[in-house]
Amino acid sequence: MSDLLLKNVRPLAGATTDILIRDGKIAAMGAGLAAEGVAVEEGAGQIVIPAMIEAHTHLDKTTWGMPWYQGRKGGVLQDLIDNERNERNPIGLDVHRQSMRHAVGLIETGTCHIRSHVDIDTDHGLSLLEGKIETRNKLKGLIDIEIVAFPQSGLMVRPGTDRLMEAAMKAGADVVGGLDPSSMDRDPKGQLDFIFALADKYGAQIDIHLHEPGELGAFTMEEILNRTEALSMQGKVGVSHAFCLGSVSESRAAGLVDRLAKLDVAIFSTGHPSATTPSLAQLRAAGVRVGIGCDGIRDTWGPWGDPDMLERARIVGMKNRFRRDDELELLMDIASTGGAASCGRYGHEVKVGALADLTLLTGETLAHAVVLRDPRPLVIKGGKVVARAGKAVVEAP
Amino acid sequence: MSDLLLKNVRPLAGATTDILIRDGKIAAMGAGLAAEGVAVEEGAGQIVIPAMIEAHTHLDKTTWGMPWYQGRKGGVLQDLIDNERNERNPIGLDVHRQSMRHAVGLIETGTCHIRSHVDIDTDHGLSLLEGKIETRNKLKGLIDIEIVAFPQSGLMVRPGTDRLMEAAMKAGADVVGGLDPSSMDRDPKGQLDFIFALADKYGAQIDIHLHEPGELGAFTMEEILNRTEALSMQGKVGVSHAFCLGSVSESRAAGLVDRLAKLDVAIFSTGHPSATTPSLAQLRAAGVRVGIGCDGIRDTWGPWGDPDMLERARIVGMKNRFRRDDELELLMDIASTGGAASCGRYGHEVKVGALADLTLLTGETLAHAVVLRDPRPLVIKGGKVVARAGKAVVEAP
Repeated sequence: MSDLLLKNVRPLAGATTDILIRDGKIAAMGAGLAAEGVAVEEGAGQIVIPAMIEAHTHLDKTTWGMPWYQGRKGGVLQDLIDNERNERNPIGLDVHRQSMRHAVGLIETGTCHIRSHVDIDTDHGLSLLEGKIETRNKLKGLIDIEIVAFPQSGLMVRPGTDRLMEAAMKAGADVVGGLDPSSMDRDPKGQLDFIFALADKYGAQIDIHLHEPGELGAFTMEEILNRTEALSMQGKVGVSHAFCLGSVSESRAAGLVDRLAKLDVAIFSTGHPSATTPSLAQLRAAGVRVGIGCDGIRDTWGPWGDPDMLERARIVGMKNRFRRDDELELLMDIASTGGAASCGRYGHEVKVGALADLTLLTGETLAHAVVLRDPRPLVIKGGKVVARAGKAVVEAP
Repeated sequence: MSDLLLKNVRPLAGATTDILIRDGKIAAMGAGLAAEGVAVEEGAGQIVIPAMIEAHTHLDKTTWGMPWYQGRKGGVLQDLIDNERNERNPIGLDVHRQSMRHAVGLIETGTCHIRSHVDIDTDHGLSLLEGKIETRNKLKGLIDIEIVAFPQSGLMVRPGTDRLMEAAMKAGADVVGGLDPSSMDRDPKGQLDFIFALADKYGAQIDIHLHEPGELGAFTMEEILNRTEALSMQGKVGVSHAFCLGSVSESRAAGLVDRLAKLDVAIFSTGHPSATTPSLAQLRAAGVRVGIGCDGIRDTWGPWGDPDMLERARIVGMKNRFRRDDELELLMDIASTGGAASCGRYGHEVKVGALADLTLLTGETLAHAVVLRDPRPLVIKGGKVVARAGKAVVEAP
C-alpha cells in the first residue's frame, strides 16, 4: 500500500483531475492537488478506469510462452477434458510457471483481480492448486487472485473428487466450483447438493460452469436458483457461461433472468464466439451482476486468446452486437466496476475512499478506448505502479 | 515488377529455402541460390505464405484515423444504411483519404489483394467510386484493388440506381454487386435479372451480399444458383455472408452447398460474430471456393475491426470452432491461396511461375503463425518490398 499523486487523468473519460492516493486508497480528487513527499505520476490527460477484472479464466491451463502445442483435438467436451488431463505432465505444463506468465500478462494489460478456476481431479490431486497458490503469493500486492476449486473432470462420476474439493477449500481455494451437473455428472441433485453444502460449510461463494444447452441448461439453472433461494445464499452464487440463456425462447430466458436478478445470482460470460451466449445488456437491465473473462488462453483446448481483458471485451462486444457508444460504455463497466461486483467486490470505482486499483487507457472517449490496441500507459495497484507502457514491474519466468 | 533474392524462408512453414524472383515472378526455389546484381533480403528462417487476400471489405466506409465517431445507431439494417448515407458528408468522410488509410494498413499487415465493395446510390452518384479509383491508381504495384459496384441503399427501390450501376462499370468497377434481393428490394427477380444482365454485358463477375436469414435467404440463394446455371456463369458468381447457410437445417444447407460446388459459386464470409455463418470447413470439403474478409472496419455501422487479415482470420477461426492445427492451416489457406481463388485469382501459391506476392510471418508452425500478433517481418508485392517490420513503404495521408 503506497502513496501516490496521479496528475491530470480523466476518470471514465470525464473532466481532467488529479487523484491523491494515501495508504493504497483514493484520498482526494480534484484539480491542482499537491502533496509533500509523495511520488508523482503524470497522467497526461489519459483516461483512467477502475482496473479491469478477469472474472473467468483458468490460470492452470495455458501453454503461453511454451513451444507451440500441436496436440489439440476435436470431439466433444469429454474428449477435450480427457486430452488435457492426460497431456499436462507429458508436455511439461508447470502450473506455477504458466500461471505466472498468464497473470503477469494480465497485470501489464491493466487487470487488478483474477477469478481463476483450478482443476481438482483424482489424477492430479491438489498439485495444480498448489502451483497457483504459489503464484498468488508471489504476486501479492501486484494482482489479486481468487481461486475457484473446479471439478473439471466431474464430481459424482469420479469418486474421491468430493474429498479433494474439501481439501482444496482447506488448502486455500476461495470459491466452490461446479460443472454441468446434469450433462457431465448425470446427477444434478448429487453435484448441487454437495457444492452448496461445501460452500455453506466454508462460508464461500459458488461459481458453476454451465455449458448445458437449451432446456437442459434451463432445468439445471432452475435447480441452482432453487437452492440459492432455499439456503438464503443470495449474493453468493454465480453461473459461468450460461449458454442456455441464449438458446431457449426469449420468454423462457426472460423468466430465468428475472429470477437471477431477484436471487442476486451473478453471470460470468466469455462471449464464446461459437456458442449461444446470454445477452449482457438484458442481464444488466434486469439488475443482474455480470462479469466477463478470457476463459482459457492458448491451452490444450484451443489456440485462441491473450492475457488481455480489453481484447476479450472486444470479443464480448462483437458477440453481443454492441455498436453504439453507450453500449461500449456498458461493456467497459462490465470489464471493471461491474465485473468486480460479480465477484463480490463492491465499490470498485474511481472515487474517494475506494481502493486505488487504477488503469490508464488511451483514447478520446471511453468507447474509443475499448477499440484501441495501445499498450496501457500505467497500471496502479493499491497505489503502487505495477505496469508502465505495457510492461509489468515483475518479470514472468 | 522487380528482381529479388529472398534467402532462408520456410514456405508454409516447411523446409527452409531461398526464393529467386525475376520480373515479379518466382523464378527458382531451392537452397543456396545466388544471383548477380539482384537485391537480397534475409528471411532468417521466417515462414513465407502467398500474401493474404482481403476478399470482402468496404474501403469507402472506414473512419480509421479520423476523430472518434459518436453517432453510431442501433436499429435494423435499413437504419444503419440510412445513417451512413446521411452522415458521410457531415462528418467529412473523404473516400480517397480513408481508403488510402485502410489499404495501407492492409499492405503493412501482409495483404496483396483487396476486393472492396463501393456504395453506388442516387445521393452520391459515382463520387465514392471515384475516390476509390484514385486510391487504386496511387497504390498500383503495392496492392491490387478489385472494386465491386454495390447498390448499398437498394437497386429496385431507388430508381436511377440501375443507370448508376452501369455507369460504375464503365468508369472502372470490376465486379457487379447486389444486396438482399428479397428483403431489401422486395423484388428478387427484378434485382437478380438486372445484375446478371449487367455482368453478362461487361463480362464481369458477380458478388451479392446475402444477409437474408433462414428459408428466405435459401430461396434467394436458389434464385442466384438458378441464374448461374441458366446463363452458364459457373466460376463467375459469389455470395457474400450467406448467413442462411448457418440458419437452415443441416440437410437443407448441405443441398445448397452441393449446388454451390457444382456451379462453382464462391462464398465470402466475415465470420460475423453475432450472426449465423456458413461452415467454412463444410464448404471447403465440398469443393466450394471460399474467401474471408474484415467487412467494414470502424465505420458508421460499428466500432470494430482493424485493417489486418490475420486479426480477421482469428475471428473467423473462433467463429468456426477451429482448434486443431489442421483447421488453422485450412484457415490460413482460406486467407491466402483459397481466398485468391474465391476472387477468380488462381495459382496464388509459393511456387515457381507464380506472382511473387509474398508475406513473411513469425511462428514455429503455420498454426502458430495464425495466433501471433507480431508485425509482419516483410511483405513483397510483385517482387518488390512493400512493407517491412509492420511499416509500409508508402505513407497514408
